[in-house]
Amino acid sequence: MSPPTDARTLAWAYLSQVALGPCAPLVELAAAVGPEAAADAVRTADLPEVLRTRTEARRHLDTAERDLDRLLRLGGRLLTPDDEDWPAWKLLAFDGIESRRDREAAVPLALWTLGAASVAELTDRAIGVVGTRAATGYGEHVTTQFVDDLAGAGWTVVSGAAYGIDGVAHRAALAAGAPTVAVLACGLDRAYPAGHARLLRDVADTGLVLSEYPLGTTPARHRFLARNRLVAGLSDAVLVVEAGARSGARNTAAWAARLGRPVLAVPGPVTSAASVGCHRMIREGTAQLVARAADVIESAGPVAVGDDESGPVRRLDVLSATEARVYEALPTAGPVAVRALSESSGLPLAAVRGALPALELEGLVGQDDTGWFRRT
Amino acid sequence: MSPPTDARTLAWAYLSQVALGPCAPLVELAAAVGPEAAADAVRTADLPEVLRTRTEARRHLDTAERDLDRLLRLGGRLLTPDDEDWPAWKLLAFDGIESRRDREAAVPLALWTLGAASVAELTDRAIGVVGTRAATGYGEHVTTQFVDDLAGAGWTVVSGAAYGIDGVAHRAALAAGAPTVAVLACGLDRAYPAGHARLLRDVADTGLVLSEYPLGTTPARHRFLARNRLVAGLSDAVLVVEAGARSGARNTAAWAARLGRPVLAVPGPVTSAASVGCHRMIREGTAQLVARAADVIESAGPVAVGDDESGPVRRLDVLSATEARVYEALPTAGPVAVRALSESSGLPLAAVRGALPALELEGLVGQDDTGWFRRT
Repeated sequence: MSPPTDARTLAWAYLSQVALGPCAPLVELAAAVGPEAAADAVRTADLPEVLRTRTEARRHLDTAERDLDRLLRLGGRLLTPDDEDWPAWKLLAFDGIESRRDREAAVPLALWTLGAASVAELTDRAIGVVGTRAATGYGEHVTTQFVDDLAGAGWTVVSGAAYGIDGVAHRAALAAGAPTVAVLACGLDRAYPAGHARLLRDVADTGLVLSEYPLGTTPARHRFLARNRLVAGLSDAVLVVEAGARSGARNTAAWAARLGRPVLAVPGPVTSAASVGCHRMIREGTAQLVARAADVIESAGPVAVGDDESGPVRRLDVLSATEARVYEALPTAGPVAVRALSESSGLPLAAVRGALPALELEGLVGQDDTGWFRRT
Repeated sequence: MSPPTDARTLAWAYLSQVALGPCAPLVELAAAVGPEAAADAVRTADLPEVLRTRTEARRHLDTAERDLDRLLRLGGRLLTPDDEDWPAWKLLAFDGIESRRDREAAVPLALWTLGAASVAELTDRAIGVVGTRAATGYGEHVTTQFVDDLAGAGWTVVSGAAYGIDGVAHRAALAAGAPTVAVLACGLDRAYPAGHARLLRDVADTGLVLSEYPLGTTPARHRFLARNRLVAGLSDAVLVVEAGARSGARNTAAWAARLGRPVLAVPGPVTSAASVGCHRMIREGTAQLVARAADVIESAGPVAVGDDESGPVRRLDVLSATEARVYEALPTAGPVAVRALSESSGLPLAAVRGALPALELEGLVGQDDTGWFRRT
């Protein structure tokens, strides 16, 4: 017996099924009027032109109840922006993307997930580890070594479950006893690639398999690109271990860059075609060279702010990069308004608003009638 | 029978023997009053305090005639700033080093050379190729490949004749039929390392072996560091193929950086200790990653200036980086004084003065009573 599903969740599932991938205007509509009103508007095509066109082909697919029922029977759940476990802070980075006209640069409407782990917790300190399907022995060895060290340091590995580097990354995390997150470009009922069906079950056992696509969705090229954006979106940094000249890993790296997150690449022999993409990114300055897991943590890790070596620095160690940036933007004395903080930090309003409560919980900031201030 | 040696050359040889390495104040004195008067001043200790102290221990070594005689019998010659073949333009970069208090950051007083090739010609387009003595098979393979391609593109390899990468670089150049330049940290009569005696003879056959130290000088740690500065000083860029965590190659790279020349490093497996230094330099941003010879040429090559795709660009291709910078600093119309050019280009006066005649020879600039101007 599955628990009764509330109307809001049904609305999210419907919107996810209709959109079938990233759709910024629908995300905005749902945020503005709520998922149920948004779903009603889609059903009746009571929409602005751009959304009417975008939803026309699929708005009749009112299959949410059946979709959720199937998901529950698989042992999965639908994670929505209503859930406490929604990785809202991680996904705030999408608000920072400049071109709001890019409908692909959107947070997902909902995430279809398998596995009991908490998305927000697992992705709190996460590295996207990606690379070519045509991995070499060197690439596999290096991936295993990096992931083992990252897992030991408490970092979650997020990847795409593809053959090659992705698969090795998930396996190495599991071998290290660490939960790992696999993001699919298809429905959770489609093990893709088929050869990784067992691996995906193992990932779900302790970690998470997730997709923004409803069950039954088949993989397609544009869905891999949309999936790459989520791997980057759920990670603090993206690490490319091996990438050929035209590897999809470079797409994931490009997403990380758009989201303002570090792109890291492992060098290899210049004689290896599987390292050409990594070398090119480093040479072009779009990726930072990392030679060991400690380099990854140094580049991606929570930013320590403040100069004195006493207590506060220790506390600041636990901050995300966004939180640290907001904290640094606060004047040393006196309160300041959120809008001013957004300006001085260069972060979008929503990101600042998301970071302040965490800083308050840490006892680092306080607020009064006039704004937010540093606690000393 | 050796040809009679003129008094100026004897003076340079004397100064070189007394200084026994880089000595900025002595270079300045010789430039100001000429080598003969400088030599007289040293002999009689009629010197400013700093130079009196610096030359005290060796000013009695008035062995120039004997030194030059021995050099001639070896088949060598003393190259001095008086010679047309003196690589003055290359060495101008030392004028750009900010800290003039650094007595080590000096052009050599003279160069003791073996080999009939022209120093100025060979170093006109030159890459310093350096690396660890503990080269791996990978490093040797990559060095050979890079040098073969560089030689094929008309670039001279300058190195230090040490075991490991240095030796492989010289050998690969010779194998490609290209003259190469070996800079020693000891007198030309001391084949160092001894195992490279045959290699050094081969280098001198078609290229050059040179040293700022008179015959008989033994190698010493500080002389290797001074030698590294000349490898960098005679090159348009320094390429580090393999370097351990504490490789001397990083010292050569540091000299290149001080001279404003590109530092390039080849990545390798992160599992290889011989690539640790290269990876660190790339990660720290002190070296640019290069994965093939074409990358080296792109980074080090003569700078093309001007935007139109017609004739002038082709001509500008042959300019050195300094010449290109001076040319770019010229206004599109009207004459400008040398001092103003120095200011606008950010290059020292001497560098501007050195570059203008070459630009005039190329027909790119002209001069009138009021200054220099671009020819269109």
